[in-house]
Amino acid sequence: MISPDNCIRNGDDLHYFFEPSSVAVIGSLRMDSGLAFRAISNMLHFGYKGKIYPVNPGYEEVLGLSAYQSVEAVAEPIDQAIVITPPKTVPGIIDQCGNKGVKAVVIVSENFAEIGADGIVLQQHVTEIARSKGIRIVGPNTIGLINSANGFITAPYFIAYDRLPKGNVSYCSQTGFVGPTAQPLFDRGYPINKTCDVGNKCDVNEVDLLNYLANDSTTSAVALHLEDIKDGRAFISAARKLVAKKPLIVMKAGRTLAGGRASASHTGSLAGNDIICDAAFRQAGAIRVNTWQEFWDVPRVFGTQQLPKGNRVGIVTHTGGAGVVATDAAVEAGLVVTNFTDSTLKKLSAFAPRLATNPVDLGPVLSTTDNPFMVQEESVAIAMEDDNVDCVAAATYGGIEGIMEPIVQMFTRLKQRCNKPMAVWIYGMKLSAIEETVRELQKQNIPAYIEFETAVKALSVAAHYAQMRKEM
Amino acid sequence: MISPDNCIRNGDDLHYFFEPSSVAVIGSLRMDSGLAFRAISNMLHFGYKGKIYPVNPGYEEVLGLSAYQSVEAVAEPIDQAIVITPPKTVPGIIDQCGNKGVKAVVIVSENFAEIGADGIVLQQHVTEIARSKGIRIVGPNTIGLINSANGFITAPYFIAYDRLPKGNVSYCSQTGFVGPTAQPLFDRGYPINKTCDVGNKCDVNEVDLLNYLANDSTTSAVALHLEDIKDGRAFISAARKLVAKKPLIVMKAGRTLAGGRASASHTGSLAGNDIICDAAFRQAGAIRVNTWQEFWDVPRVFGTQQLPKGNRVGIVTHTGGAGVVATDAAVEAGLVVTNFTDSTLKKLSAFAPRLATNPVDLGPVLSTTDNPFMVQEESVAIAMEDDNVDCVAAATYGGIEGIMEPIVQMFTRLKQRCNKPMAVWIYGMKLSAIEETVRELQKQNIPAYIEFETAVKALSVAAHYAQMRKEM
Repeated sequence: MISPDNCIRNGDDLHYFFEPSSVAVIGSLRMDSGLAFRAISNMLHFGYKGKIYPVNPGYEEVLGLSAYQSVEAVAEPIDQAIVITPPKTVPGIIDQCGNKGVKAVVIVSENFAEIGADGIVLQQHVTEIARSKGIRIVGPNTIGLINSANGFITAPYFIAYDRLPKGNVSYCSQTGFVGPTAQPLFDRGYPINKTCDVGNKCDVNEVDLLNYLANDSTTSAVALHLEDIKDGRAFISAARKLVAKKPLIVMKAGRTLAGGRASASHTGSLAGNDIICDAAFRQAGAIRVNTWQEFWDVPRVFGTQQLPKGNRVGIVTHTGGAGVVATDAAVEAGLVVTNFTDSTLKKLSAFAPRLATNPVDLGPVLSTTDNPFMVQEESVAIAMEDDNVDCVAAATYGGIEGIMEPIVQMFTRLKQRCNKPMAVWIYGMKLSAIEETVRELQKQNIPAYIEFETAVKALSVAAHYAQMRKEM
Repeated sequence: MISPDNCIRNGDDLHYFFEPSSVAVIGSLRMDSGLAFRAISNMLHFGYKGKIYPVNPGYEEVLGLSAYQSVEAVAEPIDQAIVITPPKTVPGIIDQCGNKGVKAVVIVSENFAEIGADGIVLQQHVTEIARSKGIRIVGPNTIGLINSANGFITAPYFIAYDRLPKGNVSYCSQTGFVGPTAQPLFDRGYPINKTCDVGNKCDVNEVDLLNYLANDSTTSAVALHLEDIKDGRAFISAARKLVAKKPLIVMKAGRTLAGGRASASHTGSLAGNDIICDAAFRQAGAIRVNTWQEFWDVPRVFGTQQLPKGNRVGIVTHTGGAGVVATDAAVEAGLVVTNFTDSTLKKLSAFAPRLATNPVDLGPVLSTTDNPFMVQEESVAIAMEDDNVDCVAAATYGGIEGIMEPIVQMFTRLKQRCNKPMAVWIYGMKLSAIEETVRELQKQNIPAYIEFETAVKALSVAAHYAQMRKEM
């Protein structure tokens, strides 16, 4: 392994990875199945407007673009190269990229450090060439990057959605599992700003990403999946700088001994002792989650609404049973299910005496009222406006076709009316309706969830982060 | 509250609740919106073949069925009555049901013990009438029951799916939130055998259900959501008898003080001290889960495959990152991510040396082989057949249209070939494809999951239950 200190550090700017004006894609251009073909096709599909240079000596043209024998055959400058070729060809290609003045290279190719001794030697060789030429590398063994703002995407596989979801969270990982083919990024409406799979981390690693994303004005929260930390001190320092500006959610895999061993065999990295990692996260102000669902969903709560001023939650639900589950989840995550003020209790009582408690269970009232949306909207507003409430978790029935529009309108009005953070849980019988409503709410910057527990967990992370910011 | 000892106990047979030959439905028959109309409509829709007697003095006919002035006006015998009328009318109706010889009544009506003093008195009154007439009651304040085998369903709301999912797990709860309108029972393909919301538990409670389901040959696992336990000793005794035959998965809500208070306000029950409940569950051999997702998904692993002989898991995945996450989840849930035997390592090496480790990461091989399904099928089989392996968690890419059939065929063959339990995780980019594949696998009695962590958790619960059975 090459330690990060041995790698080039051209400042902390990964600009050319996420915002290249021009990109060479080197690899198979075979129609449909070629990986370079597919990467180019994805970029065109998602609206990348920079120059694209397909590179493969066997082609003259692909997807309406001229193809080139090599990067050096391109006359115009090239910011970034995506390399998807057999491993033994990579050193020569990096060398050519250096001669051409390429600034950033994503090495998608596999079979480097993750396969053992031979791969380690090859990876080190590639890294040394890059360093000597002033090139930064993401990878090898990576699915690469997405920037949802400019449609730039390096994934070399077929992607079955029409457009990228757009948002304000950047998701970084040490696995291609965060990629657009492995995850329902669109269907779940994740608020994607950028993604990056660091792969084997021969150069660019989590520290570089933290440094870059700390200063990236369009990223308002960072979710980071890690299997190892290359340099603990550098990580803590970079993370603290980022956390002073925006939250950092970390999912550290390889928590267990067996998990650590599994990690070594697919990325060639050694998972650190989990207790030490945990201490580093605390010191860094990073907030840890332990499941994929939380990794993706918790950050939704950030960036598009203000931070909670404290940890007191109001819960408004349609079903008492779910209210109890949400209350348990809230308390276990460190929130206080607050007592409403007398004024709030009075207002809620005006609808029905039974509503005057936290959690509010609207169920019995909604099933008899003529205007359930009004009762719900007013009840959520009353809870949000309570002086004892810092944030609100609201359930809403969205599990059937035809009611999405009033739901989205209701929460959009509530967001405008009440200046406190909320998390909305959509439940019901039709998954397609639930999922569409989650996406539409996300478009209105309203964090929505398919599990009440995750909605509540997200609010608790927001409260935790807000408290940490106060203490920094 | 009426303690269960004060209630009638006609043996432990809830036969007339789940398998009535005839049912009276008492309440509003208004076209489409009437709750009794809707309950009847649902029964017809889902294929219930028993006699249905709509009861409402304002109607002569509804949905092609003759309507009756009262239950007493029906000439034929009535096994069960579903009561969906204003609370103050319920005592009189129960009295009439008694005169008519009705055996079982589901009181859907709300506003009983859950609303406080007046409701408690009314509920007690109703219970006393029922007891004096030899009637068993489910409810009040309940969505009632489902029996997927005969299409019997009491839910009085519109249900937007064509057929009930069918399976071997009975789900019981103390909330309507397990109901077919609040949960995507069909879309998720939950293996529904029966469901029952016990509501305020004025008579039938968790103990009755455990007694009944222990002897119900079509139920091979029970998932039980509880907010309180009416009688700890009776619960432990009934649960132990059930657990000697089939697993009991318990989700106890109201774990926290605040959660317990919330519970009191919607069902009128007092959540017991959680430490005491936890001890009772251990003594009873019930296995506890703490989230809705686990409540629904963990039991899939039971009943259609044999129990694991030990706690050693083989993990076969398409993506190294997910393998690490699954390994962590396995170890944290008490499984051992076993070392494969030399013979297994040799067989896996024949595909590629990198595969010869647990977890097996097929990713790099699948992306280069001409026959990915064969490689996957053989790899999973090799892992399952390993003498050191008691169960297998297998990931498969199912997140795109058009590949469901080979996936289902592959796992169906694997199930026939290898006599060990497995749990399949479906991942990918299209939720609709993932969900459909989960349903189709479920139809083949292959437990499938949308989260790898839950698949692994389910196997751990199976191993835990198998161990407990050995010690009983």
